[in-house]
Amino acid sequence: MIKPKKKKKAKAAQSSKGKCSVTFLPYGKKVKTECGRELLAAAIEAGVHMTSSCGGDGVCGRCKVVIKKGDYVTEPSGRITPEERKKGYVLACLTSIRGDMVVFVPPESRLELDKVKDEDSKYSRLQGIYSTAEDVDKADSIIEEGVFGHSPLATKLYLELPKPTLDDKLSDLERVYREIRKKSGATIMQTGLKNIKRLGHVLRTSNWRITVTLGKRNETTEIVLVEPGDRSKTNYGVAFDIGTTTISGQLVDLRTKKALGTKATYNRQAVFGSDVITRIIFASEEDGLERLHHAVIDNLNDIIRELAKERNISLNDITGVICAGNMTMVHLLLRVDPTFIRREPYVPTANFVPVIRAAEVGIKINPRGLLSCVPGVSTYVGGDITAGVISSGIADAKKLHLLIDIGTNGELVVGSKEWLICCAASAGPAFEGSGVTCGVRASSGAIQKIKIDPATFEPKYETIGKTKAKGICGSGYIDLLAELYKAGLINRDGKFDKSIKTKRLRDSDIGMEYVLVYRRDADVDYDIIITEADIENLKRSKGAIYSAASFLLAKLGLSFDNVDKIFIAGGFGTYLNIEKAITIGLLPDQPREKFVFIGNSSLAGSREILLSYEAMLKSEDVARKMTYFELSNEQAYMNEYISSLFFPHTDLSRFPSVKKTTKKARS
Amino acid sequence: MIKPKKKKKAKAAQSSKGKCSVTFLPYGKKVKTECGRELLAAAIEAGVHMTSSCGGDGVCGRCKVVIKKGDYVTEPSGRITPEERKKGYVLACLTSIRGDMVVFVPPESRLELDKVKDEDSKYSRLQGIYSTAEDVDKADSIIEEGVFGHSPLATKLYLELPKPTLDDKLSDLERVYREIRKKSGATIMQTGLKNIKRLGHVLRTSNWRITVTLGKRNETTEIVLVEPGDRSKTNYGVAFDIGTTTISGQLVDLRTKKALGTKATYNRQAVFGSDVITRIIFASEEDGLERLHHAVIDNLNDIIRELAKERNISLNDITGVICAGNMTMVHLLLRVDPTFIRREPYVPTANFVPVIRAAEVGIKINPRGLLSCVPGVSTYVGGDITAGVISSGIADAKKLHLLIDIGTNGELVVGSKEWLICCAASAGPAFEGSGVTCGVRASSGAIQKIKIDPATFEPKYETIGKTKAKGICGSGYIDLLAELYKAGLINRDGKFDKSIKTKRLRDSDIGMEYVLVYRRDADVDYDIIITEADIENLKRSKGAIYSAASFLLAKLGLSFDNVDKIFIAGGFGTYLNIEKAITIGLLPDQPREKFVFIGNSSLAGSREILLSYEAMLKSEDVARKMTYFELSNEQAYMNEYISSLFFPHTDLSRFPSVKKTTKKARS
Repeated sequence: MIKPKKKKKAKAAQSSKGKCSVTFLPYGKKVKTECGRELLAAAIEAGVHMTSSCGGDGVCGRCKVVIKKGDYVTEPSGRITPEERKKGYVLACLTSIRGDMVVFVPPESRLELDKVKDEDSKYSRLQGIYSTAEDVDKADSIIEEGVFGHSPLATKLYLELPKPTLDDKLSDLERVYREIRKKSGATIMQTGLKNIKRLGHVLRTSNWRITVTLGKRNETTEIVLVEPGDRSKTNYGVAFDIGTTTISGQLVDLRTKKALGTKATYNRQAVFGSDVITRIIFASEEDGLERLHHAVIDNLNDIIRELAKERNISLNDITGVICAGNMTMVHLLLRVDPTFIRREPYVPTANFVPVIRAAEVGIKINPRGLLSCVPGVSTYVGGDITAGVISSGIADAKKLHLLIDIGTNGELVVGSKEWLICCAASAGPAFEGSGVTCGVRASSGAIQKIKIDPATFEPKYETIGKTKAKGICGSGYIDLLAELYKAGLINRDGKFDKSIKTKRLRDSDIGMEYVLVYRRDADVDYDIIITEADIENLKRSKGAIYSAASFLLAKLGLSFDNVDKIFIAGGFGTYLNIEKAITIGLLPDQPREKFVFIGNSSLAGSREILLSYEAMLKSEDVARKMTYFELSNEQAYMNEYISSLFFPHTDLSRFPSVKKTTKKARS
Repeated sequence: MIKPKKKKKAKAAQSSKGKCSVTFLPYGKKVKTECGRELLAAAIEAGVHMTSSCGGDGVCGRCKVVIKKGDYVTEPSGRITPEERKKGYVLACLTSIRGDMVVFVPPESRLELDKVKDEDSKYSRLQGIYSTAEDVDKADSIIEEGVFGHSPLATKLYLELPKPTLDDKLSDLERVYREIRKKSGATIMQTGLKNIKRLGHVLRTSNWRITVTLGKRNETTEIVLVEPGDRSKTNYGVAFDIGTTTISGQLVDLRTKKALGTKATYNRQAVFGSDVITRIIFASEEDGLERLHHAVIDNLNDIIRELAKERNISLNDITGVICAGNMTMVHLLLRVDPTFIRREPYVPTANFVPVIRAAEVGIKINPRGLLSCVPGVSTYVGGDITAGVISSGIADAKKLHLLIDIGTNGELVVGSKEWLICCAASAGPAFEGSGVTCGVRASSGAIQKIKIDPATFEPKYETIGKTKAKGICGSGYIDLLAELYKAGLINRDGKFDKSIKTKRLRDSDIGMEYVLVYRRDADVDYDIIITEADIENLKRSKGAIYSAASFLLAKLGLSFDNVDKIFIAGGFGTYLNIEKAITIGLLPDQPREKFVFIGNSSLAGSREILLSYEAMLKSEDVARKMTYFELSNEQAYMNEYISSLFFPHTDLSRFPSVKKTTKKARS
């Protein structure tokens, strides 16, 4: 055998077979990885998280980085402007490492909690967590009295116990049980060894004045926690909506029912795949399940930490967490293999999940705090929809109601207290601000209201928090599409009218685009635009949702006319223009008073369940009672869907008010 | 300052202020410890466990060691014979270390599981664990059909589940629930995350044929364990009686109800104190609670391991453990601070302890296996007595029954299904073979039957297992006392009659003694004797028990004549001579057919509870229903006790049959 020459060896270290080091700025995080790997993989390895949401397919354009130094090979992408290209911008997912590199992650690509070490102090807090529009607009709101009694997942009870005497020698534990029974009417009591171990000392050092945290589980009342003194006034919980794309969490005072803050973030699992199917596949790879699990747990912990920090609340005073999410999200949350969800006959491992300790899955609240997951209906209609049914009150409605939840999947529920039927449509995450060029979540700086002057084609817009614009959120896109359509800038098919002369309408190497905000006026380093590809994406989303609702009703021998109320839910923040949603054909052309915009109904339902054991029982009842209807087997649904891929619809007679008001509707 | 001279320093290392090393043979264990410490403390530190049972007070004489090398100071002890003294025997608890030492631990002092490295192969297995007399005599016995239904703490159920189809899409977990409900009638079901995590794969790799282990807790049925295939035939449990001095465990086939083996050992906590009070005090010292806890857990694990090894059973197939013990033993088992038990008003932290996982306290069975503790009545009457009530059936008796449990404490229960009253008397561990010169537990080699020829004063004896004698167990001591008394060798006060001429009666430096077995005939390296101090100890034990029973009945306006049955329980193995127990005044002079010797009733009750949920409920009921009567406040009891410190009693009219049959009763 011939010995390899030293020189060759040195070179090998630089080649695709050796190891290359990559340093990520501004974090200063360095990783040694296989040369030849993708930069996005190296970033994940280094613990640098980016907003990538397409799973590294080069589609979403969110993993933009700037190469400062080093050899690499990159594939060209329409997501990188020529100007950016000059500055060294590449998509991390399309770039292979060829040697030691130094890479800068620009603010818009940062997702995560990494502390930034440079001067850029506005990024020195948790990256990727944002206050939602609800939060900006109405923090500290008292939850209106619901139909459900006030009996939180974890209830604190202050007890002043009679001291034991020679005539009353009951053991410490039974003494506590006796007092709880007296005060709460609980019968069957239970607790864990950890509490028993501390009990003797806690009782005596507190002079027999303690606070117990109680959880309820079927007929059994569990002492979750024993604390000295009166701690009954500090009892908090967090309600979560775990979406495939966005995760929202709301801090709730379990005693006063006040919502103390709402934060959201992109689901960090998105770097492993944008939809549930790709994540389920990823979960079957080595460490895949582990990584997906940790991604969502990190998300929850980040949100909890931010919410608690803002209110100066100790994590130990958070005693309960409710999570509503689709079946796959719940499996990944619990680190339960979701494999069988996508194999015929599409059966989840668990739907009605027992209440467990949040710490069992790594959620950092009080170590003995509880976690409950809202049960779903089927593999494709999860606990988020059950929660939506709870918060919208459909399950108790006397007349026929319709719930339309616009998320990565569009889910629909129709029914009343007599019956409930649901279905799911692949809407995609466009209305969540994902998969569209300048899409952002409904947070500070997001454009949510837009008007376009039909004479000058100049836009007026309003952002959440009235700050400089960062991008366009779902409700902004609905406005924008409606305004573009009404102004004649796009036709019914969603294509730009090239004949219109305005500098805002321009050609790029990937097609026509409309400039909503020039960079000089924006809070980002580029123009805020909408492209024809964006419009195509949004059109498919709105078409999927409208057609599913329309088809489902028809299947039941009904129409929109039979529906008494239409609840619109989704991550739109506090604003959604129903009129404009009808204009683009997302919502049916029905009397406007039928529509009720309810925001994130999954989060609201999750909060109701957090605050009421009754609501929890109701959610279990709803999940069992609701019938799932599978659209994908129906050719008639496909036909309906294709007819919906126009603004507002192929069949204009379905949208008489749009036909009447739209100035320049084209054929 | 004057520098200390080097020489002085070197000497200091050998003085009581420096460090000395002690090597323990035959283990070869070496420890560096403070010079000046007691050898027993150093042994504990080195992990060498001895049979010491008086807590290092120099009383029990069990920590004999042979000094092979090194400087030491020792206090003289009557427990060391002059012959032993010549050989270098000392009591480890009375010996201070003065320099580096080499110490040999002789077989009779070894308690523990340390593997012996020398040629002495008969000690190469676990030290200190022995097969009980019950075990030697009747292994593999089928438990007779009791009054309680067969529903073990953990029940295995084999399920052949229908595979999911598109028409039967129930989640895996609910599918399992449905099948269990169908088969067992359980309604409320629950399980833990660990089982859910494995469920999807277990179901599919086993082709939907699984075995679930079920536990019951109030109205809730818990899936403890899910295993692939049919494992329903391998389900074992261990019942324990945790005594202050002796711990006994019985392996039970939970399916067939067969007892598969019974092992016992000295409670390893004894090295920290012989009675509960000294252990409670020790628990309040640094690491004290921890060490006491680990001592008992090690005991249980040793017994479980030996039982399982003998039957070639995997620890994973042991799914449940029941422990019956006094209040302090249960607290220490659970690592719950027992401090408050001995502070007025003497309240335990927990009496009705929830079922927990055995692994939570370190018991090594199936990691998800269950542990339940039998509830007690009061601080001084624990779950061992509740268990005894269960196994003796008193709580269901139509007529008045009396249970006498002879242990370190003598406990008494009198009553029927109408009412139950109990009390406790400080009997001491003499009848357990502790605190008496040649006392051993009721195991192979223990002398249990004795006859003394009243003409020649020569004894005949029988050992358990018919092997060479190792010492005398409780039933042997009862026989011996009765025979010594009937032969006139001792008077009613328990003193030897020096006028009797026999070489078996001899003087020593601590008083008179009777030689039962000469060394040449024994399996130990010394004569097996009984001393006047031993007799004094045994007399106090029998007196405490008889007087408590007699007093308690009198207090209720009753006498022994009103009692229909008298159950005698205790660690006597399979043999107890009622006649002789009456002769010495341990038991009342009642018609012999009233007496039923039931052996270790705590262990038997513990086993019944292990095998029946009904028995568990009954034990809770008994523990709540039984009234505890405190003897220590009663002067009349003290008088009764003092009258009992004679053979058989001061008042001979109480023992007419003894008076009649005893040849030479003296005044």
